[in-house]
Amino acid sequence: MEVLVDAGFDVNPFCGGRGVCGKCRVRIKDNPPAPSPSEKSIFQEEELAEGFRLACQVELDDDLEVILEEGSEITGLSTGISTTTELQPGFKKGRVHLEKPVLEDPRDFVQRIHDELGTSDITLDALRELDMINKKEPFTILSREGKITGIEAGDTTRSLFGLAIDIGTTVIAIYLMDLGTGEEVDVQTVYNPQRRYGADVISRVNHTIQNKDGVTELQEVLLQGINEGIEELCSRQELKTDSIVQAVIVGNTIMLHTLLGVNADSIARIPYIPLFTDPLNFQPGELGIKINNCGLVQLLPSISGYIGADLIGDMLAVDFNSFSGASNMLIDIGTNGEIVLGNKEGIVACSTAAGPAFEGASITSGMAGTSGAVSEFSLKQGEAPQIKTIGDKPARGICGSGLLDIVAELNRLNFIKTTGTFCSLEEMTDWQKSFMTEANGITAFRVVEAEKSDNGREIVVSQKDIREVQLAKGAVAAGINLLLKEVELNCDDIGIVFLAGGFGNYLNPTSAARIKMIPPELEGKIQRIGNAAGTGARMALLNKGLEAQTRELKDLTRYFELSVKTEFQEKFVEAMEF
Amino acid sequence: MEVLVDAGFDVNPFCGGRGVCGKCRVRIKDNPPAPSPSEKSIFQEEELAEGFRLACQVELDDDLEVILEEGSEITGLSTGISTTTELQPGFKKGRVHLEKPVLEDPRDFVQRIHDELGTSDITLDALRELDMINKKEPFTILSREGKITGIEAGDTTRSLFGLAIDIGTTVIAIYLMDLGTGEEVDVQTVYNPQRRYGADVISRVNHTIQNKDGVTELQEVLLQGINEGIEELCSRQELKTDSIVQAVIVGNTIMLHTLLGVNADSIARIPYIPLFTDPLNFQPGELGIKINNCGLVQLLPSISGYIGADLIGDMLAVDFNSFSGASNMLIDIGTNGEIVLGNKEGIVACSTAAGPAFEGASITSGMAGTSGAVSEFSLKQGEAPQIKTIGDKPARGICGSGLLDIVAELNRLNFIKTTGTFCSLEEMTDWQKSFMTEANGITAFRVVEAEKSDNGREIVVSQKDIREVQLAKGAVAAGINLLLKEVELNCDDIGIVFLAGGFGNYLNPTSAARIKMIPPELEGKIQRIGNAAGTGARMALLNKGLEAQTRELKDLTRYFELSVKTEFQEKFVEAMEF
Repeated sequence: MEVLVDAGFDVNPFCGGRGVCGKCRVRIKDNPPAPSPSEKSIFQEEELAEGFRLACQVELDDDLEVILEEGSEITGLSTGISTTTELQPGFKKGRVHLEKPVLEDPRDFVQRIHDELGTSDITLDALRELDMINKKEPFTILSREGKITGIEAGDTTRSLFGLAIDIGTTVIAIYLMDLGTGEEVDVQTVYNPQRRYGADVISRVNHTIQNKDGVTELQEVLLQGINEGIEELCSRQELKTDSIVQAVIVGNTIMLHTLLGVNADSIARIPYIPLFTDPLNFQPGELGIKINNCGLVQLLPSISGYIGADLIGDMLAVDFNSFSGASNMLIDIGTNGEIVLGNKEGIVACSTAAGPAFEGASITSGMAGTSGAVSEFSLKQGEAPQIKTIGDKPARGICGSGLLDIVAELNRLNFIKTTGTFCSLEEMTDWQKSFMTEANGITAFRVVEAEKSDNGREIVVSQKDIREVQLAKGAVAAGINLLLKEVELNCDDIGIVFLAGGFGNYLNPTSAARIKMIPPELEGKIQRIGNAAGTGARMALLNKGLEAQTRELKDLTRYFELSVKTEFQEKFVEAMEF
Repeated sequence: MEVLVDAGFDVNPFCGGRGVCGKCRVRIKDNPPAPSPSEKSIFQEEELAEGFRLACQVELDDDLEVILEEGSEITGLSTGISTTTELQPGFKKGRVHLEKPVLEDPRDFVQRIHDELGTSDITLDALRELDMINKKEPFTILSREGKITGIEAGDTTRSLFGLAIDIGTTVIAIYLMDLGTGEEVDVQTVYNPQRRYGADVISRVNHTIQNKDGVTELQEVLLQGINEGIEELCSRQELKTDSIVQAVIVGNTIMLHTLLGVNADSIARIPYIPLFTDPLNFQPGELGIKINNCGLVQLLPSISGYIGADLIGDMLAVDFNSFSGASNMLIDIGTNGEIVLGNKEGIVACSTAAGPAFEGASITSGMAGTSGAVSEFSLKQGEAPQIKTIGDKPARGICGSGLLDIVAELNRLNFIKTTGTFCSLEEMTDWQKSFMTEANGITAFRVVEAEKSDNGREIVVSQKDIREVQLAKGAVAAGINLLLKEVELNCDDIGIVFLAGGFGNYLNPTSAARIKMIPPELEGKIQRIGNAAGTGARMALLNKGLEAQTRELKDLTRYFELSVKTEFQEKFVEAMEF
């Protein structure tokens, strides 16, 4: 697995290489090693005979030929509502052609630039660049808030780019923006290379607790992933990395901690205290992000250990603190469900451990929302299911939105009871029975037949998967419920429910309401905003004025810790029913 | 010479090792090499026989035993008027002992510090330090303008120091200030190691033009000298360099350019344009100044290529821009004479090439204002001279103030004519004749007899030396004259004449007026302020509010270029007469 991940292949070590999630399946061409106990429990006899193994369980002592399933493109994870903000970037470029100095005008070279461009300050680096440059020829000044930060030979004023980077636990989305026009030039999505240390943030934090250099490892692979994404963008657009002068970064709080190479273990254990939630500005080279070192890297502020800068990005994208009157809700569902509620008067936020179900981990046929994932599903009595996959590719598995649709339909069509248990075969019609199968000895609903799937395996939703969905939707529903109670509002008082996150992009509001993840009264108020965290980061990049708004959003938002509420468990168990 | 300078011995390569100034004399114990032509012209036959040579002319191909003249202490060059300003340093330290975090209070660690100390921002470096530190124990926060820049274990709040550094062409003065009490703790003066590349700034700039790595060489030796001075201070005071969090630096414009490692050649040639005159702030590590890297190095602003940050320091020391009504004058005499004139309404400044006479170079028995230098001299008709040396040590040579006194007395007692030429022996009295001698074949006045001097050599002022004084005082006088004319004032309109610089510290105003270096009408208005540049730097260090005043002084001051004035040559020649 390490070799494959390092080489950039798309294998998914969801469980961090512990051999339990079964997501890193590969086929060994010749002489596969003897199966481990965990492989025996995951694979069928015939699969083992065909050479299927878990990449994370295979120890290499010689060359080995390995057959991978077809690589998936990362799509859908970088789309969000479009960017609407004033174009007022922090950095400016100005072309200067200095007059030949004469005795009558003893102004120094820096002063001449100040007088030409209205700047008033200079960094030591820029001064050194000015020293080296031919001052008789035209040159270009890079400045931020009146301070000259860089100097380039010739006229490079048209080449001024920035990056908005959304560091997700699974996928990193890097948007290349033209700071001269405001246009989104390109986007690059890369898997977060930290996946080799676990699919979820807690596994990764555990890695840092158990390994002395763990924090550095997490930082290094993350930086490498980001830098490779940047290089890819630059190579595709034929840009020098020096054309990129700014990066605005969002991500959950633990991702931002690992990015800086600081410990996040205090977030992982009670009382969940982060080291920092402040917005941070630093030179790209201080961290090792490979853009113009005369530029700037900015981290948007976070709110708490489990309400990160990605949520600030979400809120910024919809101008959350501009609304007066009714309170609005914003839900970002991933491994955690983050819920914020409020308006310009004040905002309350909570986070609830939805579990990795909607991200594809821990689900029998689960996968991330990448090409080939079943993303939409509907079923009519007596008919075959209607299925839509991402990219209209042959089905490879089920992503969060598909899983939600399937479970909602199973509920509506009485495959399952309100407790979530499959009806017994005796209670089922023949049509219903025709879908029933088993996965690793557990009762399951067949979504796609083996012969119709991309890899020749049945795609199923098992009883265990339904339990995972119940845990996830129960956590979100309990969070919404308690948050409403905390501010003494009910569903009628809510204006809009913004649904954010890569998952939220495909999620069917009707399904979400039907399984009561979201109160049915809110169904008509749902507005899907996709990867709004990326949108917020792009806006902050294009308009430096929004820096103040991100601080305002942070200051306005009170974190509400669900786990201190004794009623949470009670509400949670209640909300697990359909 | 290189070996001696590198080893820190006090040899003076005034001419930059060209073998012409004769200041680096040493005695070779055994088998001295054959004298070079320049050595033959400088030394007498018997001196050559005794092994006297110029260190800069001796090529080493084997071990050599060398006898140096007694080393001189650098005294007098670091004294200035005392510091009077509000104690309001830029950096603060605060002790923090965080409460144990609980679920009910999810504030992150940085926020807890902000709430405790009123800070609102943090650097990446400080964040990393906070990550590493034991947050259950008390620790210390270093902050500047509300931004946390460093974190130290334990309680180090009492240990908060700063440096005021005055980089002179010859001597660097480093003042150690306690930022907690405002007290001057210690001062260290070191020779500017750039002296090995020439006594004056122009020789050093020429070195950078002729040598590819010249700029870097000048920077490296200067930084080394400063860092050695800092280490010496720290070792003497038993301080860690990390206790020092700030350095405020003044110096002439060329010194500041070489400190940053940028070219100063454009200052050395018409139209004398510096690269920068802006105040600059940077991290100590960006440059390599060995104090706490979470601290700050600040360069005060300069005005032009020949009016440096040292003049801003001078003006700050006397609060030059606070005066209304009468205009005041400030004169800082070194290799250049800088003259500023004005009040809060506006200031005009000019610089005039006084030459190195008052710094001891190019003068037969000249030396810097260090111990053993004749600093005061008076003569009464028919009597032996009254001589005062720095440190009351046996006379080793003549420094600027002594030279000025001697020439003034020679003029008053008619040893010389108004043209500066010695009277012929026929025109002299026997008493006068008793002082007359020769130096290298040139008529000279004997100041100290060989047997009374420290090194057994006659200390003299030759006809050539008098010419040098005439050039120097003519330049200063012409500058004063033209500056007054420029602003349409005359001597009656002037309130105070501040006389600054190490030389100005000992200078006798009567002598200066008598030889008409300073118009006799101004004599009663002279106020000596010594090394006021260092005073200004100390004030700026102790009171961050003065940063605005240094900018104001810069903006208020107009540079007046004498060399564009056709009358300068005329006034200069006129002013050379006594």
